[in-house]
Amino acid sequence: MTSVKGTDSMRVLVPWAHLEDQMGGWPDGLRVEIYDGTGAPPADVSDVELYVLPYGKSAGRDLLPRMPALRAVQSLSAGVEKVLPLIGPEVTLCNGRGLHDASAAEHGLGLILAAQRELPRWVRDQDAGRWQPEHTRSLADSRVVIVGYGSIGAALEQRLLACEAEVVRVASRADADREVHGVDELPALLPTADIVALTLPENPGTIGLIGAEQLALLPDGALVVNIGRGRTLDTDALLAELATGRLWAALDVVDPEPLPADHPLWSAPGAIVTPHVGGGAATFYPRAERLVAEQLRRFAEGRPLLNVVPRPGVATPP
Amino acid sequence: MTSVKGTDSMRVLVPWAHLEDQMGGWPDGLRVEIYDGTGAPPADVSDVELYVLPYGKSAGRDLLPRMPALRAVQSLSAGVEKVLPLIGPEVTLCNGRGLHDASAAEHGLGLILAAQRELPRWVRDQDAGRWQPEHTRSLADSRVVIVGYGSIGAALEQRLLACEAEVVRVASRADADREVHGVDELPALLPTADIVALTLPENPGTIGLIGAEQLALLPDGALVVNIGRGRTLDTDALLAELATGRLWAALDVVDPEPLPADHPLWSAPGAIVTPHVGGGAATFYPRAERLVAEQLRRFAEGRPLLNVVPRPGVATPP
Repeated sequence: MTSVKGTDSMRVLVPWAHLEDQMGGWPDGLRVEIYDGTGAPPADVSDVELYVLPYGKSAGRDLLPRMPALRAVQSLSAGVEKVLPLIGPEVTLCNGRGLHDASAAEHGLGLILAAQRELPRWVRDQDAGRWQPEHTRSLADSRVVIVGYGSIGAALEQRLLACEAEVVRVASRADADREVHGVDELPALLPTADIVALTLPENPGTIGLIGAEQLALLPDGALVVNIGRGRTLDTDALLAELATGRLWAALDVVDPEPLPADHPLWSAPGAIVTPHVGGGAATFYPRAERLVAEQLRRFAEGRPLLNVVPRPGVATPP
Repeated sequence: MTSVKGTDSMRVLVPWAHLEDQMGGWPDGLRVEIYDGTGAPPADVSDVELYVLPYGKSAGRDLLPRMPALRAVQSLSAGVEKVLPLIGPEVTLCNGRGLHDASAAEHGLGLILAAQRELPRWVRDQDAGRWQPEHTRSLADSRVVIVGYGSIGAALEQRLLACEAEVVRVASRADADREVHGVDELPALLPTADIVALTLPENPGTIGLIGAEQLALLPDGALVVNIGRGRTLDTDALLAELATGRLWAALDVVDPEPLPADHPLWSAPGAIVTPHVGGGAATFYPRAERLVAEQLRRFAEGRPLLNVVPRPGVATPP
């Protein structure tokens, strides 16, 4: 990718005004405008060349089809399945891989601990002014099968091991050197799991990967956790298992999102649902701001961008 | 401590009948009876020589004054402040030190994550069928001051470090070799804390250790966590800080316990209260059963017991 250094020719949309001070001013060669995904978007975006998408705001994505001059788009999400259909092969797509690892992994751990130690029950007892201690399950001594073992899965594993849990790694392909099992081994692994934690991206190979057949292989009382993408887990199949009380669930991502107010998952027995907040905690921002600042410098100087997403049939820049 | 081996002379009360099978039968020389702290206690306990207290049942402690022949009592709690006043110097007191480390530390971690990631809010939103994602604070990058650094504090530290938090150790006495600060350094340390986690036992030196003066030293938005003993934290001083919204709290132990239904702590803004369930999760039982089995063997054979609590003015057995 090239750019014209020293002119003000390249228009860029960025979500954070405060980044200008952090960077000691915007890089030469960029005409930076702020759009955070709330309020009215810029009227004319036809000459925007680099677009840093506002994080978690669908309104931000809606502008993409109106950007014929776009050369690069920076998503702050690890998963970019919603951006892909909106850009052409000439656009370099960069994702937020790594920015969310700590935030997502700690929320996943929090969901697991909340389910094992029955925190929602204590919250409801607190609202009722009820002191009724009961013994609960633990995370320690549990066996956790992580399905979709990547950077978030590794960050979750590190936390689980410190909690004296056992971890089994599962990814799309087996890798004996890294003690990673392939998804084809799930039929043998699921019956051994106290907890199955899904950290899968959404793609044609993962949608519906965990359905009725896979859930049926889990032992009674197992906990199903999803912090990856909602569509990788069959909602109806999970609801059927929850209805019988055979399984528990803790879900930060669901299908559909947002979950409609009248959806049965909200009140399913033994289910904890959080509104896709795993990646978006405070610890994400300093990491995201460092990446965007570096990308702006690289774009201004015509250097290759970081976190470029390889796309089938699309040549990635040198 | 000595015992008459090979006779059935020594009467013992134990809370778990299933331990007999786990041990392959009760040891010779013991006449074992089961009392789990629920239902009617044995009518005559005057000849009980070893009493394994039912865990977390005050009814169990009420029997102690009726046991003139008592030579040893095994508590399954780490803190024995409620047992001490009920036994004489001739009784060997053993505690549950170590049994609760994993269970208490993971509950403490769960409380910290629940507070930082605002889990109670998601639980209440779930009950209302409300999908309203918001960014929250994180545990990663936070600085946690652990006050009362012992075996539970060390187990909590291990989990916090894996969550990319920074840990500062504080105990009654400083120990530079182990990077432990003394409580006298709290005035310098509290202003630097994002989170202060209390893992203190209850004794004359710790009651009210954290009061209005100490809480005032915490920065705005700091989180106060208590998984030790309720009386080490001044409830009224904490309520005053919570009322202004300046501090958050996550408490598994409170003063008083049980917390009366109309106590203001239940509804204090920014407070999470769980009913002293930190130590009592599934992972505790196998550990507790191994200890009790070993103590029964030792008592039957007249060997010294484990986990003997040193008491001022009371000679501990060889």
